[in-house]
Amino acid sequence: MRRIEVGGPQPYAVEVGPGLLARARVAERQVALIHPADLPPAFVATVQAALSPTLTVEVPARDDCKTLGVFSKVLSRLAQANLPRDAAVVGLGGGAVTDLAGFVAASYLRGVAFYTLPTTLLGMVDAAVGGKTGVNLPEGKNLVGAFWPPKAVWCDTDTLTTLPPAVFAEGAAEAYKHGLIADPTLLPRVLSPDFRPGGPGLEDTLADAIVVKAVVVTRDLTEKGERAFLNFGHTLAHALEAVTDHAVTHGEAVGYGMHYAALLSRDMGGADLTAHTRAFLRWQKPRPLPALTFEDVWPFMARDKKADSEGVRFVLLHDLARPYLARVPEEVLRGAFEAWQADVTRLC
Amino acid sequence: MRRIEVGGPQPYAVEVGPGLLARARVAERQVALIHPADLPPAFVATVQAALSPTLTVEVPARDDCKTLGVFSKVLSRLAQANLPRDAAVVGLGGGAVTDLAGFVAASYLRGVAFYTLPTTLLGMVDAAVGGKTGVNLPEGKNLVGAFWPPKAVWCDTDTLTTLPPAVFAEGAAEAYKHGLIADPTLLPRVLSPDFRPGGPGLEDTLADAIVVKAVVVTRDLTEKGERAFLNFGHTLAHALEAVTDHAVTHGEAVGYGMHYAALLSRDMGGADLTAHTRAFLRWQKPRPLPALTFEDVWPFMARDKKADSEGVRFVLLHDLARPYLARVPEEVLRGAFEAWQADVTRLC
Repeated sequence: MRRIEVGGPQPYAVEVGPGLLARARVAERQVALIHPADLPPAFVATVQAALSPTLTVEVPARDDCKTLGVFSKVLSRLAQANLPRDAAVVGLGGGAVTDLAGFVAASYLRGVAFYTLPTTLLGMVDAAVGGKTGVNLPEGKNLVGAFWPPKAVWCDTDTLTTLPPAVFAEGAAEAYKHGLIADPTLLPRVLSPDFRPGGPGLEDTLADAIVVKAVVVTRDLTEKGERAFLNFGHTLAHALEAVTDHAVTHGEAVGYGMHYAALLSRDMGGADLTAHTRAFLRWQKPRPLPALTFEDVWPFMARDKKADSEGVRFVLLHDLARPYLARVPEEVLRGAFEAWQADVTRLC
Repeated sequence: MRRIEVGGPQPYAVEVGPGLLARARVAERQVALIHPADLPPAFVATVQAALSPTLTVEVPARDDCKTLGVFSKVLSRLAQANLPRDAAVVGLGGGAVTDLAGFVAASYLRGVAFYTLPTTLLGMVDAAVGGKTGVNLPEGKNLVGAFWPPKAVWCDTDTLTTLPPAVFAEGAAEAYKHGLIADPTLLPRVLSPDFRPGGPGLEDTLADAIVVKAVVVTRDLTEKGERAFLNFGHTLAHALEAVTDHAVTHGEAVGYGMHYAALLSRDMGGADLTAHTRAFLRWQKPRPLPALTFEDVWPFMARDKKADSEGVRFVLLHDLARPYLARVPEEVLRGAFEAWQADVTRLC
């Protein structure tokens, strides 16, 4: 079992290891447990046995739960149960449900305690640490939410054995990204056959990938500075998700987006790291994209949440583990897009 | 003009005086202005001229805007306008719209800058200072929200001249409450004929009432301690609002509730301050209540947001400006309720 401390104004610990669902414990006497409809019933039963929740709220699976409509219904369930302000909200499931549960915890009675039990690799590497919570709007993803750190995170590695390989690979994209921006030792380990559910490399590689995020968010909880580096590859990724109406998964989009960001980094004068992002795409085997032009994706990049009044910022790399923020001229964006498209057509 | 500093992790200033709508200035280049449909159009035009907002969003009047449905629609308007994260949300109007606007500001892109221009006495004395934002659920008032302090508050006293006397009196109830819990010099000043829109006592009495709240919330932003004292009179008040389905206004309910809390304070061994709360009721002239029994209101007191797992806490007074928190035995609650009912039947 690995234990990772996340600092900041409200420090908390992330535990990574087998059997943690059964070992979850909270200080609060009343608990609302929130989980998606498609979660294995045994996971829910195990956590219910551990926490004896006052109420258990089932929400729609995947991003279907990340709406203000579901947010509203869950809050009403908590209010109907008279859940007091010294209660806790516990999110059990993938990143979508922990994002929803966190925003519920942040908002119910203006904030109650929050705990997460992520059950997907993506949820463990990305969503569970750092305190970003929220839901989508019809106008875009994650446009509403709060920074609301959990009081504890339990990453039960046993839950990953039920994941389809493609869903596991989604989380691997974020772990690989952590390798590129901060810990290059992760790069070969994520691509190793030992990094699989039940594999000998799983716990330590996963824990080291979480450490990268824990260090960054400890220094920058509300994304005023370096936390933005975690968005490496995400500007094109979000555009690909939007333009395909989420036919492309987040993990596939990040795999594609990291390669675009590596091309931009090179074209802006940095080291050529594209061999790394090509290697990841070969390992990930994302589904092919529809035919896209720069004009298709540009409006979505320009309205990315990372945009401010001065334009779209990209996270680029001078070299491995040397990220920086830059505004990239449109002609560079356009040129790299053509190179990216040629590469992904060949690779995927 | 009076300027009041509110401290804490994000300090800000409250300005009180005439002509402030026209003098509002914000650092952010893009602004969403939110106002209720029943606001005098001249107020909206004045603020639009001062701030040149990117978009102006009209919402339903009074508590009809404090729903998750309106919250959702306003957020979509901001997203459709591509409002960036370095933009500001400005709430103009009564406490309901500033509560809504604050929760929108807290949640849009996980938080943008927030400013308020309250135009009711209640909004100036109570809602505008302290960072509590939020909306209602069908299950109860203010059950959803965030602590999200404004960057500045402008209380333009000119706006109060359009208020019906009964609406002005609503805010006077909160100002009187600040006198009881912290600054007894306010008590005669609130009841003075000089304390009226355009009156010579308005600006200073209003500013001193705001100072009470500013001092308390500076020391206790998230209501872990003494901030709860601001709820003096509010446990019965919220029950009266709920049981009458809000036929009783908040200000009337607080007038009634302060008298109940004064009776409880006396019965629990404190000084007899009921002459003060009777004097306020005589001044306020709230509309009579329907016939109510203790059994009618008790369930609503018991599920008040101020309740935690251990029961309903009441704010009581040892004496003027000496508030404390107590759990009151049910027989004391019941006895005081009968005395309260006899008094209000005679007075109102």
